[in-house]
Amino acid sequence: MLRGTSQLRLSSRLFSSCAVRKMIAPLDASKVQINKTKSPSKPKSNNELEFGKTFTDHMLTVEWTEKNGWGTPEIKPYGNLSLDPSCSVFHYGFELFEGLKAYRTPDNQITMFRPDKNMERLNKSAARICLPTVNGEEVIKLMGKLIEQDKYLVPEGQGYALYLRPTMIGTTPALGVSAPDRALLFVIASPVGPYYKTGFKAVRLEATDYATRAWPGGCGDKKLGANYAPCVLPQKQAAERGYQQNLWLFGPEKYITEVGTMNVFFVFKDSKTGKKELVTAPLDGTILEGVTRDSILSLAREKLSSDEWTISERYFSITEVAEKAAKGELVEAFGAGTAAVVSPIKEIGWGEKDIHVPLQPGKQSGALTEDIAKWIADIQYGKEKRGNWSRVVA
Amino acid sequence: MLRGTSQLRLSSRLFSSCAVRKMIAPLDASKVQINKTKSPSKPKSNNELEFGKTFTDHMLTVEWTEKNGWGTPEIKPYGNLSLDPSCSVFHYGFELFEGLKAYRTPDNQITMFRPDKNMERLNKSAARICLPTVNGEEVIKLMGKLIEQDKYLVPEGQGYALYLRPTMIGTTPALGVSAPDRALLFVIASPVGPYYKTGFKAVRLEATDYATRAWPGGCGDKKLGANYAPCVLPQKQAAERGYQQNLWLFGPEKYITEVGTMNVFFVFKDSKTGKKELVTAPLDGTILEGVTRDSILSLAREKLSSDEWTISERYFSITEVAEKAAKGELVEAFGAGTAAVVSPIKEIGWGEKDIHVPLQPGKQSGALTEDIAKWIADIQYGKEKRGNWSRVVA
Repeated sequence: MLRGTSQLRLSSRLFSSCAVRKMIAPLDASKVQINKTKSPSKPKSNNELEFGKTFTDHMLTVEWTEKNGWGTPEIKPYGNLSLDPSCSVFHYGFELFEGLKAYRTPDNQITMFRPDKNMERLNKSAARICLPTVNGEEVIKLMGKLIEQDKYLVPEGQGYALYLRPTMIGTTPALGVSAPDRALLFVIASPVGPYYKTGFKAVRLEATDYATRAWPGGCGDKKLGANYAPCVLPQKQAAERGYQQNLWLFGPEKYITEVGTMNVFFVFKDSKTGKKELVTAPLDGTILEGVTRDSILSLAREKLSSDEWTISERYFSITEVAEKAAKGELVEAFGAGTAAVVSPIKEIGWGEKDIHVPLQPGKQSGALTEDIAKWIADIQYGKEKRGNWSRVVA
Repeated sequence: MLRGTSQLRLSSRLFSSCAVRKMIAPLDASKVQINKTKSPSKPKSNNELEFGKTFTDHMLTVEWTEKNGWGTPEIKPYGNLSLDPSCSVFHYGFELFEGLKAYRTPDNQITMFRPDKNMERLNKSAARICLPTVNGEEVIKLMGKLIEQDKYLVPEGQGYALYLRPTMIGTTPALGVSAPDRALLFVIASPVGPYYKTGFKAVRLEATDYATRAWPGGCGDKKLGANYAPCVLPQKQAAERGYQQNLWLFGPEKYITEVGTMNVFFVFKDSKTGKKELVTAPLDGTILEGVTRDSILSLAREKLSSDEWTISERYFSITEVAEKAAKGELVEAFGAGTAAVVSPIKEIGWGEKDIHVPLQPGKQSGALTEDIAKWIADIQYGKEKRGNWSRVVA
């Protein structure tokens, strides 16, 4: 007989595997159901916009269960979530988010800046805390459809944008500590203005070694709720001492890792050779894999002459920064993230005294900080085309 | 003039300080409003109880705002929370919880085991992530009132209890990363059975050094959601290799810190002197300040002869455990926490081979593990009185 037992077993295994695959539905943007608001809001004027305090009229939600996979995506009026008080998100930190912006171009298209990078990171965050991963392209399509509903609420003008907040939470209604078998992906959107309404405003940082943001074998490289709440108390304490943000140090070497909720870059200049170095901490598992960080590194490698510049992802310490500052070799420093793009730094409190970071005469930033802000804004607002970095979504 | 300017200033400062104090209301259990369910549930039989999957008919909620302090406590039918999707709890991990049990004594009183310790820890957790603190005694009173509503649902019998889950979440509806100015304290309750339905079942652990539960300058000593989600992936990975839980190691010294979501104790016996040591990791900021841990240390110091025993809170490593096991000096090991009280350990996977932990012949635990379980159960179920450890609440 040709059809032996082993062949039958193989067929039945294949069959059951297919059956399982059919049951576990992938996320499918084409299935979206749209329920429009009956009371559309009036757009706020640009000067009324406050980051993350008012939202557009609609939100996107998609439920997931371990048994059935992703359900029907819904775009519906912005409103409260109704959740059982035992849900995993309230007790065990099963939550992750992304932050990205949509921009109105001069020809009235709405674009997003490298949303594929955010989706890639969303999936890494999800895998780290046993939440389901998604097909990122489907979420980008859904965000496009969400934006379409409220397109007239996307503000106009350089520095203005629609901030999108994809979020995933575990919704299993049970108190056992285990991987959630239910989850909710939702996206809300907030029209926002420029981070610096009247041009840059350089900040003072406290170099913080008494609290630790992230550590090897932890999850500091992922965009998880777990990384944020514990950093607010040190931030308040630094603020009481007159510093706007923490410069997070790590380990006995006092390595510089991040600033507040942003990546951080320093510029050094070798006083002998005159060569400059743009440096940021390496992605070793403790550093958030910032999309702005990645964009800055790519653009700097492309636009800055390698005769004059070295672009480094390496460990560097607050001691190195203090020493370089003392020798006049510290040129500038800035934070980098989606909200502000770049955030210039003017002083760093370390031990008994402050390290002064140079600014351009009469300005609130260094020269490279200013250039980088322009490079990125030009791509975001459609003045410059650059491969697939800017994606028309609505 | 006696009433000088400085005196006037002082009075006005006192006045405004009082005014502020009046506005910011403390948590007041006497203000509770009770809204009873119209459809009381039927008690489940003891063998149907599953940890944290079914809940009693009522829940307790109290809202807090930075402006007005604590609002009116409400006891109302168990039901969903309705929250804005931008609330801090969904994005930044502003959440903390406690876990404690209420027991039915032989004379039908309901008692709680050292609830003041849980309230003390709740406040430490709250302060760490800038959520409001509470007067713990008021929360204990409110939990008593909550239990009173559903007293008939508190199961009867040794090992059965009502598990209470006080939880606090940040509810500010805005995406800026800052201390919440709104919060919700809620308590839900789940009737539970014994952790080991058919007597102890010793577990196999994987000594885990590739993932790190907590870090100095972090928040591993607090009962925050942030500490839980990141530990589930390593737990799943250990399970795939045949281990039920992770034995969390720390640092190059491979110090033993905790097991799964419990504190951990080891018993060593010096083969020369015959003297035994009960040892657990010290409270250095990375170890959860377990109420069971504290109770075990107190009882052991009181009940075990100091001629025969040393009770230690000190650093000890997996290497020390492996060496002691090789010399026949490893006597027993167990996890300690509210859910199981004690959880005996039989094997620890470390490197290429397993460390075997002795059990009593024909039993699933060591002798001290068994004694400790009895010491604590006797207090919890009212067979033994011990100061204020057991508190009548309903």
